[in-house]
Amino acid sequence: MLNAQRIARAQERMREKGVDAYLVLTHDDYVWFFGEDRYQPRAIIPKMGPPIIVAFRGEESEIRESLGASEVRVFATVGQQIKDVVDVMHGIIGGHVSVTVGVQMGFGTPAFLLNLFQKANPKVKVVDIAPVMDELRAIKEASEVALVRRAGEIAAVGMAAAARALRPGVVENDVAAEAEYAMRKAGGHGTATPVFVNSGSRSCWLHGTATDKRIDAGDFVVIDLVPRHLGYCANLCRTFVAGEPTSSQRELQDVYRRAQAAAIEAMRPGARVRDVDAAAKAVFDGAGHGDRFVAGISHGIGLAFEEMPAPTIHPLDSGVEIREGMTMTAGHSVLAVPGFGGVRIEDTFHVTASKIVPLTNFPITLETASWQA
Amino acid sequence: MLNAQRIARAQERMREKGVDAYLVLTHDDYVWFFGEDRYQPRAIIPKMGPPIIVAFRGEESEIRESLGASEVRVFATVGQQIKDVVDVMHGIIGGHVSVTVGVQMGFGTPAFLLNLFQKANPKVKVVDIAPVMDELRAIKEASEVALVRRAGEIAAVGMAAAARALRPGVVENDVAAEAEYAMRKAGGHGTATPVFVNSGSRSCWLHGTATDKRIDAGDFVVIDLVPRHLGYCANLCRTFVAGEPTSSQRELQDVYRRAQAAAIEAMRPGARVRDVDAAAKAVFDGAGHGDRFVAGISHGIGLAFEEMPAPTIHPLDSGVEIREGMTMTAGHSVLAVPGFGGVRIEDTFHVTASKIVPLTNFPITLETASWQA
Repeated sequence: MLNAQRIARAQERMREKGVDAYLVLTHDDYVWFFGEDRYQPRAIIPKMGPPIIVAFRGEESEIRESLGASEVRVFATVGQQIKDVVDVMHGIIGGHVSVTVGVQMGFGTPAFLLNLFQKANPKVKVVDIAPVMDELRAIKEASEVALVRRAGEIAAVGMAAAARALRPGVVENDVAAEAEYAMRKAGGHGTATPVFVNSGSRSCWLHGTATDKRIDAGDFVVIDLVPRHLGYCANLCRTFVAGEPTSSQRELQDVYRRAQAAAIEAMRPGARVRDVDAAAKAVFDGAGHGDRFVAGISHGIGLAFEEMPAPTIHPLDSGVEIREGMTMTAGHSVLAVPGFGGVRIEDTFHVTASKIVPLTNFPITLETASWQA
Repeated sequence: MLNAQRIARAQERMREKGVDAYLVLTHDDYVWFFGEDRYQPRAIIPKMGPPIIVAFRGEESEIRESLGASEVRVFATVGQQIKDVVDVMHGIIGGHVSVTVGVQMGFGTPAFLLNLFQKANPKVKVVDIAPVMDELRAIKEASEVALVRRAGEIAAVGMAAAARALRPGVVENDVAAEAEYAMRKAGGHGTATPVFVNSGSRSCWLHGTATDKRIDAGDFVVIDLVPRHLGYCANLCRTFVAGEPTSSQRELQDVYRRAQAAAIEAMRPGARVRDVDAAAKAVFDGAGHGDRFVAGISHGIGLAFEEMPAPTIHPLDSGVEIREGMTMTAGHSVLAVPGFGGVRIEDTFHVTASKIVPLTNFPITLETASWQA
């Protein structure tokens, strides 16, 4: 069923911010409002009145049933979705000359769709919906925290499977296969980012993937997992060494471990996102790695893998105040020493008034021996 | 290594079309030019001279080594990638007042990135790079066809695993787990779309996903797989019935099977994409399902899951002439009978002068018994 309370809260903010309608094109907000996902979500939430779903006729009866018939109008033409959206929008606009339509400007909104929409609606003023949605989405309801925690449990199952598979001579992609499979079987619905298995020089990558590269003895291997459960993500990253770690590998990992601990310590209600960065960077500085620090060690997480505050995407988010109810990660950015290797450790947390509650739980160790025993 | 010949061909077309620089933001074109992928590809190809990669400093030495040092300039700041791109662009522009920059306007280009870029470069005219790239990408080299074929083999392994797992009582997501795992182990590097396991009323969906829904006896189950291998995709879709199919289920599937056969028959060099649609629709019409036909039964496939011609995304592509060397699918759109169920069968083909060569091979049957024996 659609979440009438969330729709009403969004509409109230839309009226405050002067947004006439919100054109929902992304999975995260669609799930947040309607409690289920579609492959290509398309909905319009006017500032007053019932939302409108633009959907394929084959899905019509199912959508009416699952969302509640009286509150939804369903459109039928496929491939003409944009035209449907435009027609609906004209209906909302009525005789008005200009109308302000909000759209999410994240990674999930394709540029060409927005272009088509603007061409078809030259009089419409398109604005970023972030001022309406960010605030609503950032503070999680208890049911949302439970889903992030469940995704965190799934991530830990995946990480254990990866640790079990990881040894010198195996191929990165085969390690990814085990992690991916274990997460699906544990209740994960795919991942929000590709499974990262970055070994050797690839451990220095800012992001990652899994390739046909063979993992050599002594390679750092960064495993980064972001499973989804009913739309909600958790992020868990660990760095292992294939075979026996050297003392300098242990030292580098220890720097990151201490930086993450400092970041978690700084992640308190009332602090700013940049304070978390500063705490982690101080550890990097003390270890002589200050120039290797990549700003943005923490980000919001929920229905989107990176959501407000997301300082690596939106630098101004470093000024955002951390508040009770947020779900955030610590350990986002890699400590890369080119020619030597890279380390990253990341976990997901719930910010409460009294403490920072981990939503991912997995040992921090370079060694995979205990999973392979 | 970067593909100097492809870059030169693109630059020649850029000069013809009046594009001063191509800002590469999507995986498909990045892989096409540079022969490897990055999680967030960023490159600039000026109309003359060497391309410029904008990359994380930790990846610098690796990129220089793999692409050839003398032809690549690497930038270092992270999170400031857009700023780097802008700086490079100003360097290319020099004293010119206006410059025309091409960008791919597909699903892969995030609206906010384009917005940021336009704000930072108010004097830059941003145009769709499709007139430059579509023509180059559409006609596949032999090495590309081999990779699509390899992806097709991987898809067949995944489909067999799905058929083995599929029976009344199992959960959609567990079937997806088996298909996904089998494809990774067979050499797939993830999938271009989520694994679709659409059962029961969900078989009518235009697109799909895998949920926690239990598959009931008698459910139609649409399994749609688009694995990647080294960037290249193949698309294989089959519809099964959990348990024993009824005669009316067999009839509906037979309509689709004949429509797909007609589409393949029509897919000849010199024909238009709309001719393929017409051939399939004629079969739907003859069976009394004409009003259920969704236009766009065929699309190009390669480094992108749907690439030119892609009539369901760009309706004008239905006028595109099919030519020797294209790789295309037949069977894209679902035949949905609300309240009864939906059927879809899709395969991938190479268009040659003399015949249409299948790049996916899997029996067309509603029954899973032979895989479960």
